[in-house]
Parts: sequence; C-alpha cells; structure tokens
Amino acid sequence: MIDVDLHIQLRRNGKPFLNSSSVELLREVHRCGSLRVAAMGLHCSYQHAWDFINEINRAAGKPVVVKQRGGAGGGGARLSEHGQRLLDEYRSVERQIRTFTKKLNAEMSF
Amino acid sequence: MIDVDLHIQLRRNGKPFLNSSSVELLREVHRCGSLRVAAMGLHCSYQHAWDFINEINRAAGKPVVVKQRGGAGGGGARLSEHGQRLLDEYRSVERQIRTFTKKLNAEMSF
Repeated sequence: MIDVDLHIQLRRNGKPFLNSSSVELLREVHRCGSLRVAAMGLHCSYQHAWDFINEINRAAGKPVVVKQRGGAGGGGARLSEHGQRLLDEYRSVERQIRTFTKKLNAEMSF
Repeated sequence: MIDVDLHIQLRRNGKPFLNSSSVELLREVHRCGSLRVAAMGLHCSYQHAWDFINEINRAAGKPVVVKQRGGAGGGGARLSEHGQRLLDEYRSVERQIRTFTKKLNAEMSF
C-alpha cells in the first residue's frame, strides 16, 4: 500500500527551528516540569537535552524553555509563554494536517 | 516571521521511499533521459546516483527507473510506467500541499 506522510516544520525567517522531535521534547518538559526527567523519558542525556533546548531557544529568537531555580525539587524547567504559544500553534497545525493527510490518502490512485 | 513548512514522503507499507530529494533525481532522469547527465546536474557522482536509484527501485517494490541500452547516445535511463505514475501522483500531492500550506500560514497567529 502506498500512502502520503507529511512532516511539519515551523520556520523563523525561513530557517527551520521546530519539528516533531523538538516538539516531543518540549511536550515532555511541559509535562514533567523538569528537563532531567524529560530527557530520561526520551532516553537521551541531560546534556544533550540542554544543548537541544539551547539550540531551539536561539533559533526561536526568544526563550521557549526557561530554567526554574530552587524549590523543593531543586529547580526545573518550564515552557515560557512564547513556548506555550508555539506548542499550541503546532498542535493546531498537526490536527489540520492529520485531516488533510486522510483526505489526500483517500484520493490516492495507488 | 514564523511560518509552516510541510515535507512530503510517499510510503510503501509504512516505509518511506520517496521524498523531495528522490523526486528531484527522478525528474532530472525524466528530463535528461540519462542518469549520468542527471547526476551531473545534481552535482553528485554517477555511482551515488545509481545507488540511490537502486534503493528507490527496491523500496518501491518494482522499478521506477529502467536502464536503456544501446542507441546513438550509448544507452540511458528512463522512468518506468510505474515511475511516471508515482511522479504524477507526487506532483498532484505537491500542488495540494502548496495551497494548504498557504492557507495554514494565512491563519498563523504569529
């Protein structure tokens, strides 16, 4: 069976900065409130996750994830307001893409 | 400016086998009637282009590009009927994606 699969990228000034991998990490950060726990859940090192986040923050032009210092758990990480808006936007695009891909595949002549 | 960019993959039995890079190569083969000329146009080696084509042929389940032996030009390569159908299908998907992406971007709240 042949079907169409679509991959989403968000770009800033023409440069890709958010795709399904980075969104997965952001969602885990949002869910866990900790980059360490998010990294463990995604089976990558804490350092790798931070490098990835720093790259996203730079490419996004303003922070998407911010560190939270102190507190009972010894600090953590959370999405900034901008990061939350980006995730919301991505989710909305994802939903529309899913419907559109279904339509494309129903029309496929293979 | 933040915008959405979509990447198309055709999959066979769930496995990706055609994306924008492979389609670019197939289009060049179709245009030139020669893999050697197509490879030059895309600045890759003839061997690399053949390896890529063999990979696509295998993944597609049946040949997408076939060799043509003999003739004044010393043989060449052309799309099979299946290859032509795949390209037509891809083009139709591309066209629809372009329109859809415009619509998504017009609705983006960033």
